[in-house]
Amino acid sequence: MDTTAKFVLMDPPSAPGIPSATVLETWAQELRAECEELEVVVARTDAEVLEQLVDADAAYGVLPQGWHAPRLRWLQAPMANPPLGYFTPQIAEHPVVVTNMRGVYNDHIATHVMAFMLAFARGLPHYAHGQRNREYRRGVAPVLHLADSTVLFIGAGGVAHQAARYLQPWGPRVVAVDARPETTAGGAIGTVFDADALESQLPLADAVVMTVPHTPDTEGMLERRHFALMKPTAVFINIGRGQTVVLDDLVHALEAGELAGAGLDVFDQEPLPPDHRVWTLPNVLITPHVAMVGPDIDQRRYELIADNCRRLLAGEPLQFVVTDKILGF
Amino acid sequence: MDTTAKFVLMDPPSAPGIPSATVLETWAQELRAECEELEVVVARTDAEVLEQLVDADAAYGVLPQGWHAPRLRWLQAPMANPPLGYFTPQIAEHPVVVTNMRGVYNDHIATHVMAFMLAFARGLPHYAHGQRNREYRRGVAPVLHLADSTVLFIGAGGVAHQAARYLQPWGPRVVAVDARPETTAGGAIGTVFDADALESQLPLADAVVMTVPHTPDTEGMLERRHFALMKPTAVFINIGRGQTVVLDDLVHALEAGELAGAGLDVFDQEPLPPDHRVWTLPNVLITPHVAMVGPDIDQRRYELIADNCRRLLAGEPLQFVVTDKILGF
Repeated sequence: MDTTAKFVLMDPPSAPGIPSATVLETWAQELRAECEELEVVVARTDAEVLEQLVDADAAYGVLPQGWHAPRLRWLQAPMANPPLGYFTPQIAEHPVVVTNMRGVYNDHIATHVMAFMLAFARGLPHYAHGQRNREYRRGVAPVLHLADSTVLFIGAGGVAHQAARYLQPWGPRVVAVDARPETTAGGAIGTVFDADALESQLPLADAVVMTVPHTPDTEGMLERRHFALMKPTAVFINIGRGQTVVLDDLVHALEAGELAGAGLDVFDQEPLPPDHRVWTLPNVLITPHVAMVGPDIDQRRYELIADNCRRLLAGEPLQFVVTDKILGF
Repeated sequence: MDTTAKFVLMDPPSAPGIPSATVLETWAQELRAECEELEVVVARTDAEVLEQLVDADAAYGVLPQGWHAPRLRWLQAPMANPPLGYFTPQIAEHPVVVTNMRGVYNDHIATHVMAFMLAFARGLPHYAHGQRNREYRRGVAPVLHLADSTVLFIGAGGVAHQAARYLQPWGPRVVAVDARPETTAGGAIGTVFDADALESQLPLADAVVMTVPHTPDTEGMLERRHFALMKPTAVFINIGRGQTVVLDDLVHALEAGELAGAGLDVFDQEPLPPDHRVWTLPNVLITPHVAMVGPDIDQRRYELIADNCRRLLAGEPLQFVVTDKILGF
């Protein structure tokens, strides 16, 4: 049987949470078995990728410099939120539809948010300090009582909505600010305000959770004045992209007691340099960009890709389309 | 107006989570305002307590040695689960009805359980080690994916049920073993097995949460063979009483890799001695018996006491009665 579309799996550069070449080979075999009309190619080097793209209908991965793919109709990004550099002017100008992996990791990332939030809610960083010194002492660990708290999500996407669902049994007030409140409101988030409301909402929140992707608009969007607006008892969590927060300003705010603690999975520089002051703050929990890690994540990525392959072949709309190829989401 | 009952607030010995004398004085004032028929006395020394008890109808606190209270109808214990020594033979033989504070801290304790469980679910103890060494490294932190997990509660009381409610949005399989399955089944716990099922359930659980009180039956009930039955990937949490677990056996099991980690708020010796090996294990989270701590706990205690005062005066059944004054729950 003739194939009707060619799909190139581009062996991508090593990056956080991106599957290895071995995984790509397995995916290719499964896709060939599942979609007989699809020609599936794994391309390992930039030269191979460039050659295979020339007559490709679809591709998964990161496009190399100098690509030329006049027939390309679909590009599947390997990340939930591709970084700013992913969306080159060439992609923006090309008619190709770009999809991302949003949704695939929402439960893991939202669970990571909850792990940070509950650790602070129950004073675990405080007691960890006692544990290191073998000191059985209660002290006065701050307790965040979620039932009486307001949780503010900056960005009301899938992660925020999933975390809000996890929060429901505790019964906090859950609100968000978002650039597109009309399309993101609903579900377990009580109210989604327009992005303009950020500065008026920050002083009301007991926990602030940053979930926005890195775009030209969000780069460095949280800086000193924002942290100064937060309650001194508030906890800040960044689970989105490090580049959206001026980390030195956050460190200053934590040292000045302008907020009570921070749980950080992403940083404006990754890996976070060993001499950065943020490592040494007692009221910070640091994880190395692992919020998306989970046991069955490669299988989920495969299912998302296979579903979009079926949609491509059937002429149906693709899932998880990036609607603005300049902003990147 | 004449009072119809005398209530003695006994200034109790300092103990974890027990309110101070100042709080008792506030409670006494509020009770006098709320229940005009009640004579409310705060007794500060053992001598004062003994003297006041002679014609008391009700008392809050810990009875001193040598008490004599022929009219005592109600004793309110100041703890959720009074320790084994609280229930003396004299209390067991006396017709007094004993009530405890169960339920008052359920949300805080269950949130502490969730903080421990999610910390292990997302590898926070693993990354905390990296943080101390300023190492931004992913390694292979174990991830407990709750949606695919079984959570086993030992003891299906209020804390277990509340934690099971918090767990619901993640969708794990939740089961329990309990000495009284017929009265504790239901709610968010799918199945409550008889206590005999413990050894058959332990090998199936990804997280084991110990919530049972300290009684002659539960003392040292978890020992080496129980930990050996757990999955090597399982997490153990003790949020009940330290005396129910042979801590040295747990340490052995953790060192031998028989289970993946432990979150411990209670210990067979408190304060936990500084030279105990458990302090130094990398896969253990230690908090100093603080799971019940929360911002409004004294107010909740007061409301429980005031409610029972109203019931006493109205001749209605008291709340949170200890049904077995020998076993103590």
